[in-house]
Amino acid sequence: MKTGPARILDTLRRATGRACSGQTLSGDLGVSRAQIWKHVQTLRNRGYEIHAEAGDGYRLDAIPDRLYPEEIRDGLATHWLAQRIHYFDSIDSTNRVALELAREGAEHGTAVVAEAQTAGRGRLGRSFHSPAYQNLYTSLVLRPDLTIAEAPTWILAAAVAVADTVAATLEDDNAVEIKWPNDVLLSGRKTSGILMELGAEATRVDYLVLGIGVNLNVDRESFPDEFRPLATSLASYSGRRIDRIDFTRRLYGELETTLDACARYGFDAVRGRFDARFKMRGRRVNVKQLGGRVLSGTALGIDADGALRLTLDSGDERVVIAGDVTIVKGPIAHDGPSGRSKEA
Amino acid sequence: MKTGPARILDTLRRATGRACSGQTLSGDLGVSRAQIWKHVQTLRNRGYEIHAEAGDGYRLDAIPDRLYPEEIRDGLATHWLAQRIHYFDSIDSTNRVALELAREGAEHGTAVVAEAQTAGRGRLGRSFHSPAYQNLYTSLVLRPDLTIAEAPTWILAAAVAVADTVAATLEDDNAVEIKWPNDVLLSGRKTSGILMELGAEATRVDYLVLGIGVNLNVDRESFPDEFRPLATSLASYSGRRIDRIDFTRRLYGELETTLDACARYGFDAVRGRFDARFKMRGRRVNVKQLGGRVLSGTALGIDADGALRLTLDSGDERVVIAGDVTIVKGPIAHDGPSGRSKEA
Repeated sequence: MKTGPARILDTLRRATGRACSGQTLSGDLGVSRAQIWKHVQTLRNRGYEIHAEAGDGYRLDAIPDRLYPEEIRDGLATHWLAQRIHYFDSIDSTNRVALELAREGAEHGTAVVAEAQTAGRGRLGRSFHSPAYQNLYTSLVLRPDLTIAEAPTWILAAAVAVADTVAATLEDDNAVEIKWPNDVLLSGRKTSGILMELGAEATRVDYLVLGIGVNLNVDRESFPDEFRPLATSLASYSGRRIDRIDFTRRLYGELETTLDACARYGFDAVRGRFDARFKMRGRRVNVKQLGGRVLSGTALGIDADGALRLTLDSGDERVVIAGDVTIVKGPIAHDGPSGRSKEA
Repeated sequence: MKTGPARILDTLRRATGRACSGQTLSGDLGVSRAQIWKHVQTLRNRGYEIHAEAGDGYRLDAIPDRLYPEEIRDGLATHWLAQRIHYFDSIDSTNRVALELAREGAEHGTAVVAEAQTAGRGRLGRSFHSPAYQNLYTSLVLRPDLTIAEAPTWILAAAVAVADTVAATLEDDNAVEIKWPNDVLLSGRKTSGILMELGAEATRVDYLVLGIGVNLNVDRESFPDEFRPLATSLASYSGRRIDRIDFTRRLYGELETTLDACARYGFDAVRGRFDARFKMRGRRVNVKQLGGRVLSGTALGIDADGALRLTLDSGDERVVIAGDVTIVKGPIAHDGPSGRSKEA
């Protein structure tokens, strides 16, 4: 059962820019005209611009730039993803909330959305810069029928969905790439990060939480000094403001399709799309591993488990399960069919 | 820096049953005799029996049956495990706290201990019956250098450590067995459950939380009806009260040794001990899988990833990654060297 304000909003929305009389609203909703006025005030307080004139009724002029669940769901084409959305104006971390929901039994597809995070988490316990009302911070509770060993491929699949959504939104396919394991770059600068946490029973995934942050409208000049050279947003890159609600809907749709394909056919179903975005292939990279050791070599691709395959300068092939990757500027080596490249 | 009461406790403990004069304590600790009295009262409030007589000083007569960190650490032989213990008289779930600590960067080996859990979690989101001051509920933050795929073997390794600690405490080797994947049985009844949750970066484990519950002194007659036929405690089985502090120390020691071996040499280092406790081998089992389907067959053992290997009635071999296992009463089939058994 929807709340009074939500039902008024539905009616005003259906009127698509025309006014609805207070009497009509009152009759449709079965509440007094005073009550209608109160609900309209509630909507205005939430940022909806609603025009009212005597005899003219109410007209929806503009919706606020807020990721309200009812806005995201209006026109959302998913079957199971984000059917339930937990919304926060500000929260410590959407992943923290989603983990708690997962552990309390939240169902597959449950989404958490926040306008701001006060303790947004990145990889390796790093913080994720999360200013308010600019970007998208969302975490999803997933309950795939998956072994723990297969779980990492779901980060890669999510990265594909994010990258494709960014490309479609900007109508710019070439600038978007995936930096292994979980960043999406726009013209070489980070615009999205993805984080995975999971609970397991024996070797099976019980729940999997995917945290996704996407810089949409934040001005990259406002980034902290240490991030500025490395990060961007869709708006800073393209020069135009992004409709955050529309982006979120597209992303959820893309994620559902991509993860469904993964669940049904495994990562192979997504590999073609991943490879198209994996522009590190053939490039020289440095991988800083835990403990500080740096591996230098040429990126070959990813293996079946989602690990990065490298050819070291010695010619040996190496599989890397985690680390910070830096792409070394320079020409791209074209690999032979063996997928192995030699140093020039 | 230890607190005043903890320092007095140290001194009284070192006196091993003899009295320490207030003057000596006051001099040693550099605080007034009134302060000493106050600290003694604090200790008494925590359940320490401290005898005081004029001219005779203070004497430690008995320590309380509480899993206080300073009690567990007194004589604890570990190098990294439980060097830091977070203690709760009552908490919703030790795993929930440990997960939060892990996500905040708590170091390898950080332990959480609670006297009672109000929302203790078992497998598949089930509750874990957790009455106060009877048992052990502990969760450990671990940061092994492990791929996600290897993580499930750490539950099995933990089960080995729990099983061996139970056997050593009861001085009864034969009654203790591991029920795949994460229960320890005493004479066929569950006495311990182990739960794993983890955070990951790409294919690498970032943190791993092991939750361990062991029924020590709880009277099995007090179990809820649905658990009673299936569960027991060390005390109910053996007829004697278990020193919970001593058990916890032993368990931490055993866990550290076992996990160190796993970290250094992989699960193979523990496999012999696991096999000795894996008495399901050769027995007919029913495995109820998610969705309700039941597989019937003969348990063969576990594979390298920690999954259960079964021979189905059809003769096919099957690997099971999760499920509820029921051991069917009946004779044990002795497998041939192929590890495959035929139906009679």
